[in-house]
Amino acid sequence: MKQIKVGLLGFGTIGTGVVRLFQNNFDLIKDRTGLDIVLARIADLDITTDRGVQVDAALLTSDAHAVLDAEDIDIVIELIGGYEPARSFVLRAIENGKHVVTANKALLALHGEEIFAAADRNQVEVMYEASVGGGIPIITSLKENLCANRFLEVFGILNGTCNYILTRMTDEGEEFATILKDAQRAGYAEADPTFDVEGIDAAHKLALLVSLCFGTRIDFNAIYTEGISSLTPLDIQFAKDFGFKIKLLAIGKHENGSIEARVHPTMIPEKYPLAEVDGAFNAVRVNGDFVGPVMLYGQGAGMDATASAVMGDVMSLARSINAGRLPRTPGLGHVDAAIKELPVKPMDEVVGQYYLRFTTTDRPGVLAKISGVLGRYDISIASMVQPERHAAEAVPIVFMTHEAVEMNVRKALEEIDQFDFIREKTHLIRVEASLD
Amino acid sequence: MKQIKVGLLGFGTIGTGVVRLFQNNFDLIKDRTGLDIVLARIADLDITTDRGVQVDAALLTSDAHAVLDAEDIDIVIELIGGYEPARSFVLRAIENGKHVVTANKALLALHGEEIFAAADRNQVEVMYEASVGGGIPIITSLKENLCANRFLEVFGILNGTCNYILTRMTDEGEEFATILKDAQRAGYAEADPTFDVEGIDAAHKLALLVSLCFGTRIDFNAIYTEGISSLTPLDIQFAKDFGFKIKLLAIGKHENGSIEARVHPTMIPEKYPLAEVDGAFNAVRVNGDFVGPVMLYGQGAGMDATASAVMGDVMSLARSINAGRLPRTPGLGHVDAAIKELPVKPMDEVVGQYYLRFTTTDRPGVLAKISGVLGRYDISIASMVQPERHAAEAVPIVFMTHEAVEMNVRKALEEIDQFDFIREKTHLIRVEASLD
Repeated sequence: MKQIKVGLLGFGTIGTGVVRLFQNNFDLIKDRTGLDIVLARIADLDITTDRGVQVDAALLTSDAHAVLDAEDIDIVIELIGGYEPARSFVLRAIENGKHVVTANKALLALHGEEIFAAADRNQVEVMYEASVGGGIPIITSLKENLCANRFLEVFGILNGTCNYILTRMTDEGEEFATILKDAQRAGYAEADPTFDVEGIDAAHKLALLVSLCFGTRIDFNAIYTEGISSLTPLDIQFAKDFGFKIKLLAIGKHENGSIEARVHPTMIPEKYPLAEVDGAFNAVRVNGDFVGPVMLYGQGAGMDATASAVMGDVMSLARSINAGRLPRTPGLGHVDAAIKELPVKPMDEVVGQYYLRFTTTDRPGVLAKISGVLGRYDISIASMVQPERHAAEAVPIVFMTHEAVEMNVRKALEEIDQFDFIREKTHLIRVEASLD
Repeated sequence: MKQIKVGLLGFGTIGTGVVRLFQNNFDLIKDRTGLDIVLARIADLDITTDRGVQVDAALLTSDAHAVLDAEDIDIVIELIGGYEPARSFVLRAIENGKHVVTANKALLALHGEEIFAAADRNQVEVMYEASVGGGIPIITSLKENLCANRFLEVFGILNGTCNYILTRMTDEGEEFATILKDAQRAGYAEADPTFDVEGIDAAHKLALLVSLCFGTRIDFNAIYTEGISSLTPLDIQFAKDFGFKIKLLAIGKHENGSIEARVHPTMIPEKYPLAEVDGAFNAVRVNGDFVGPVMLYGQGAGMDATASAVMGDVMSLARSINAGRLPRTPGLGHVDAAIKELPVKPMDEVVGQYYLRFTTTDRPGVLAKISGVLGRYDISIASMVQPERHAAEAVPIVFMTHEAVEMNVRKALEEIDQFDFIREKTHLIRVEASLD
């Protein structure tokens, strides 16, 4: 039985999951590949902490180069995370002719071009299923079985922390800050939650999905990114009243030679399958010209689910190594010569529906003045709600618009927010209600 | 650019979708594979009917052997359906060293062993993503990215016709026969709907999923199969009252060295993602030891969605042909030596919860007698509903049980149905409420 040797960089949470998976499903991995896939070395700066798994001490090293430069290693798993030294290590592995499996979306979103080009030059594959959607097989599906489709759009709930917080805010009616603190205590949010709650992590993942779906390079900084920290229980309640749920959605669209790529809180009808994705679960919905809408749903993070994705890539590479020449499938799903530089539509030009919540003094003429400005900016109103008034309090007035241009909406709000009856910066939430 | 030649057997609805896909996405297929994948020949007994696509007449032949025996064809797509001549044709293609892509679940469910063994002998691959769940990439996901998991269970809504009918029965409160007629008129059900509505098509698909998930051969006849034709609006209404929906579920489980494989109407909590799968959509939910629950959702049938799955397989094979030696991934996801013959648990031994609707004369003591028999068979009651009585009419009494053994439930019902106060054969629907 042919032996394939794997080296692991990073013995943290996910690394521990991978080790457990190697151990627990050793027989199964053999049954499904006909190969003897062996975890031959584990490198981490800390090789003394007890991770709750038994590992032969001879496998452990604190020198990454004992993995990267080892003659006998076929596949390197990179689970260090972050930009450096992950980038240098991955490039080194590639130059040494090793295939790479990584869960590092930040690295690929920012340095993907360099890494995939190096892989191409060195005729190795870089696989990264674990980088998007935890255990959900979305990358493989886009690169393999759905690959005959021209993709029109991709929507993702890609950050488990945000979805957990939003689900609890929705269920409990509590403030963001309260739930965040609780999530941190429960291990659902990091001590510094910025990457998650400000949408950066989701934008990293979206960059990969957009490249794969539309066959384009994308400048990560061109992705409009807005997180969930300014959402309020009041907006969540209004969303409910309109039959909507608020999710942090990553949205990619391809139309007329340009793409949209944006991450922001989005109201979606509560009857959409995406709206049912609660808690730490993730989901990706793609729409292909032949397959139509397809949704994949599962655990978006966690040691075991992520390990499942990592090992799926390892087994795929092992099968390919055994079958012959590599690379088999291009890293971004398209041959290099076919990858375009599609422009990203500036956010100002995006067209969509909007939820607008104005906070006003309760006096006659307010509605007329707001409507007047909206009308001047070509923003027409689909529905309006003005809840019962509480004397002397600031009054919320909520509009749902028909399709409008983002720039117009921003300009209108700037103007409206100047009125002396406006008591608080107006809240804007984008609405996506056109999925079939 | 390397050329890969494909021959198509069967120019019906799906065949037409495949031709359209070759034509519409010709550039994209090249961009994503770096290969020139050409539809070189189409065989069908009828080569004169206008299918609404332009095809070079030189490609058409009424002789299947002009595809099967052609030196230049690398991949044969079988879209004839049924057992013969599909079986002979597929075996012939394999013997001639051609890779095969098929959408034929009936063929694989009954003759899979013979076909996969022949493929193994001849070192070719047989791919069949289109045979389960239309365009949903479930087969690829199980064989490729989720392959590191020990699967514990698989649940599927696998028949679009049944799901369409059940969704309409649920929404409209109409009888099965009424909706079926309407579905036939609308093209959602065949003139002879037996294969669909009696669960046979779903059982064919389940046979493939069970083999893939659990690495076992399965005797198709060992799959318990019950369709939807005896479901009534009354049961659907009671299900709603209990917070459940009724779906035709295909269920596979692996426990203690034996498997369960069954297709039957099943009540599931309406909050489950699977319960939200309505109309002609399909979904498959698998539970792996590492990845946890994963659900894939999409169009379960139709020309275009099925063509997407067929072409995904063609592109995968083309990439593998280009990369070197084949086969790369075993047909049933496990090397032949690892495939087991796990026994299928007889339906009598299955343990589950039950919905039981008794139709009784309204008189004192009825409840006591029914409960007495249930108790004797170790069937304990989770809840009971007895709607308001209409004098002189037969009265429904509905029980939801705790976990009970199927054989005990059957025996109890046989006994109860002998009582002179029972006015109609008791309705039994299995309940699945334990998914996490």
